[in-house]
Amino acid sequence: MNGANALLRTLVGGGVDTCFMNPGTSEMHFVASLDDVPEMRGVLTLFEGVATGAADGYGRLAERPAATLLHLGPGLGNGLANLHNARRANTPLVNVVGDHATYHKRYDAPLESDIDAVASNVSSWIRRPMTTPELAPAAAQAVQAALSPPGSVATLILPADVSWSEGADPVAPLAVPLPSPPDPTAVSAVAAALRSGRPTAFLIGGRACRADALRLLGAIASRYSAKLITETFPARLERGAGVVAAERLAYLGEMAVAQVEGVAQLVLVGARSPVAFFAYPDKPSDLVPAGCEVLTLCEGGDDVVAALEALSAETDPAGGPGAAPLAPAPARPGLPGGGELGRESLAQVVAHLLPEQVIVVDESNTSGLFLAGATAGCPPHDWLALTGGAIGIGLPMAVGAALARPDRPVLALESDGSAMYTIQALWTMAREGANVTTVVCSNRSYAILNMELQRVGASHGGDRARAMLDLHRPDLDFVALAEGMGVPATRAETVTEFAEQLARALAAEGPNLIDAVITR
Amino acid sequence: MNGANALLRTLVGGGVDTCFMNPGTSEMHFVASLDDVPEMRGVLTLFEGVATGAADGYGRLAERPAATLLHLGPGLGNGLANLHNARRANTPLVNVVGDHATYHKRYDAPLESDIDAVASNVSSWIRRPMTTPELAPAAAQAVQAALSPPGSVATLILPADVSWSEGADPVAPLAVPLPSPPDPTAVSAVAAALRSGRPTAFLIGGRACRADALRLLGAIASRYSAKLITETFPARLERGAGVVAAERLAYLGEMAVAQVEGVAQLVLVGARSPVAFFAYPDKPSDLVPAGCEVLTLCEGGDDVVAALEALSAETDPAGGPGAAPLAPAPARPGLPGGGELGRESLAQVVAHLLPEQVIVVDESNTSGLFLAGATAGCPPHDWLALTGGAIGIGLPMAVGAALARPDRPVLALESDGSAMYTIQALWTMAREGANVTTVVCSNRSYAILNMELQRVGASHGGDRARAMLDLHRPDLDFVALAEGMGVPATRAETVTEFAEQLARALAAEGPNLIDAVITR
Repeated sequence: MNGANALLRTLVGGGVDTCFMNPGTSEMHFVASLDDVPEMRGVLTLFEGVATGAADGYGRLAERPAATLLHLGPGLGNGLANLHNARRANTPLVNVVGDHATYHKRYDAPLESDIDAVASNVSSWIRRPMTTPELAPAAAQAVQAALSPPGSVATLILPADVSWSEGADPVAPLAVPLPSPPDPTAVSAVAAALRSGRPTAFLIGGRACRADALRLLGAIASRYSAKLITETFPARLERGAGVVAAERLAYLGEMAVAQVEGVAQLVLVGARSPVAFFAYPDKPSDLVPAGCEVLTLCEGGDDVVAALEALSAETDPAGGPGAAPLAPAPARPGLPGGGELGRESLAQVVAHLLPEQVIVVDESNTSGLFLAGATAGCPPHDWLALTGGAIGIGLPMAVGAALARPDRPVLALESDGSAMYTIQALWTMAREGANVTTVVCSNRSYAILNMELQRVGASHGGDRARAMLDLHRPDLDFVALAEGMGVPATRAETVTEFAEQLARALAAEGPNLIDAVITR
Repeated sequence: MNGANALLRTLVGGGVDTCFMNPGTSEMHFVASLDDVPEMRGVLTLFEGVATGAADGYGRLAERPAATLLHLGPGLGNGLANLHNARRANTPLVNVVGDHATYHKRYDAPLESDIDAVASNVSSWIRRPMTTPELAPAAAQAVQAALSPPGSVATLILPADVSWSEGADPVAPLAVPLPSPPDPTAVSAVAAALRSGRPTAFLIGGRACRADALRLLGAIASRYSAKLITETFPARLERGAGVVAAERLAYLGEMAVAQVEGVAQLVLVGARSPVAFFAYPDKPSDLVPAGCEVLTLCEGGDDVVAALEALSAETDPAGGPGAAPLAPAPARPGLPGGGELGRESLAQVVAHLLPEQVIVVDESNTSGLFLAGATAGCPPHDWLALTGGAIGIGLPMAVGAALARPDRPVLALESDGSAMYTIQALWTMAREGANVTTVVCSNRSYAILNMELQRVGASHGGDRARAMLDLHRPDLDFVALAEGMGVPATRAETVTEFAEQLARALAAEGPNLIDAVITR
């Protein structure tokens, strides 16, 4: 069989059965093989950033990789921002980038570029098989690399002739390394620190943001009055009524500093030591309080649950987790009164209606200020955040999450500025019938930049500067944009309209969009 | 003054007075400086690929660089595909990429990535000033590098603290090297070849695609019965009635082979030796006929007009150009009869109405098959092509061309698939009142890939493969998309509708879009 065919069979054999793609000429044999390997689902996107963001969302929920299929260096470039987010999320992802035939590269044809250099920015593993028999083994390695703890982006560069030539055979999946077992020295050191009675906070990231790990953390934290704080933008946070809650480290450095003030010991559980998202004149980059000791219980690639179980055992010789008083009781806000829609009433309506087991994709940015508080006691749900700071992942990630978990509803909470980077995702939502309700919070501004303009001390910015941060002139009509791509849409300007439209959209199958005009 | 302020003043002093941007926190001081340096025009885009494509279009028409302003590695990634096209077009472009503060990089904050690696893919020049006093001198070098023949992308990486700190002074522009003078040996060799009487073709690229160079080429070619062929995708081709015409080298390798069949001498004039756009099984990559001698008269960075004048003098001792019989006489097709719109009738309507001095941005791909023939005798105009094969440049390039030349109309001929990569450009068109008429040729397919699927020999592709190449399910409604971003739009399904709508759109000021549904 040809290389492409063996590649698809190897991927499917390794559990990679969904490919988000935007192919070109060099990838036609991969595309043609979809008819030979019906186990592989091809999902067409109109822009590569949709493909990569969808693969990120898919991987976060499925816990196995989706593949992408991109067209040479420019296709990879278009997908790069969301691959950056996937890298920061430690999402398992197999990134397939087509290239010219091996013998064609030396002619420097118009699409020739340095794919390896661009891929190096986001990939833990890069390989370019130069012969067809090497292709399937490389694909198996790519899946293995993507799945190796804590998960990463593996990039397979696929020369067209390696794909189209005969002489390939699919290969069996390779064993994936297990997460590293707990380090007894680290566990003992953290246990001793807890016993010292000094004020302690746990900083929690990656796999530790899931309910089982949080339950163990909650028991330990309650025993020692320690604080639980997650990283600012968790890839996947389980939360809601009955799930041990951790506050998120604030995006704004000064608020984050306040959260960890007085902490004498910071215990890292699958998280990295806290740093400011951006530098600001006269503000610290390192957010660890002066004199605070930083201890690492486990890193992202370690067996987080085993480490927490070991810590639990060492701190509580009787064994077994204690109560988990840190989990909120079931509670939903009532519907707010009518009137114009604002950030706070939007959050209340969302919390009032949030379905059980919903997957919330959160790229609401400044418009989402009140969401965490309002939804804390809602039925259990997953919350996916923008891990790498590259805005434009929300709509694609919602596509991927919905395809990974067709049994669960997806709610994409978007901001208008962020939505526009990858607005083409709506078409794929419509095409695939993805069960996504999108709420675009339209404040008609890059609101976060209006805040940042002040925070960086660029306060002399006048009208010409502010014009670069506003999204008026003309207003974006998200209803028209959604309908233009086949997604039913409505506009909500009042609390009542928003509540009615959100209830209807959540009850409906398939994609829907609400253009929620936020006035305050 | 601070670094940002000196940077803007230095750019403006060097003739760079337009900046297409999508800034983030790290770039806020650059943005704030727009109020201090009113000579710099800031143009907001909703996606970085719009900014870079617009800067390409601007540079092609203005013959001086526009600047971009992008946000760290992900912003550069989003802009990479159109920077690739700009690189292939030899467009002068100053690419400014904000980065974290110098001292913040070691913390590996979420947006940290290897900007240099990504920039290396597209840039002839990359610098990252590490102190504020170094910034303005680096900016002057960037402008110099961008303008150095034949023109290129210069990337200035701008650490936030270098931008915000005081102690900077603007610097004067640096001298730009002149294009290299003609190489007498090369000129004599080409003259001797022409005199040999062997069948000759000129392959013309870059600066040689402008009317003055074409006039010289036409005179020489007519004297020696030589063929004039331009590169497949010229950055800027002057053409129309009275302008010496050259056929374009075909995109399809087998057609290109036919064009150069029997040519014994191929003379390169600012072009590179012809190669196939893609490799195909059992088809050649190198398009030079067997036994054909390839001679280089001049390269892209050389003084093309001087080289042609020298060649003209050496081949015609009497001096002065001869007649130019290769220039078409004024001729426009009449309006075709009514009925459904097809590729041929669309071309005829465009040619019937094409305004004098229009700037045509051509990303019509397969839908544009008949355009070149139909418009050959239209009033003189510029034709901008997709130089690097990275689709998604048409709408952004039209924005940039319109801002560079507000005195001339712009006609963007788009295909539906390509338009969707950077559809956000419509918003910037509306915001800036850019005088662009956009025609989207909607065939609801990646038609070129349906053709390529066969050509690469992947003919076993069945329904699942073809589904990855079709843009139905759902149909894209470009009228809704345009109106959602503030651009007035109509749909044409018949020849009569299209002719009426195009005439109206070309007569109107500001942007307009026609969704031209192509049935054959």
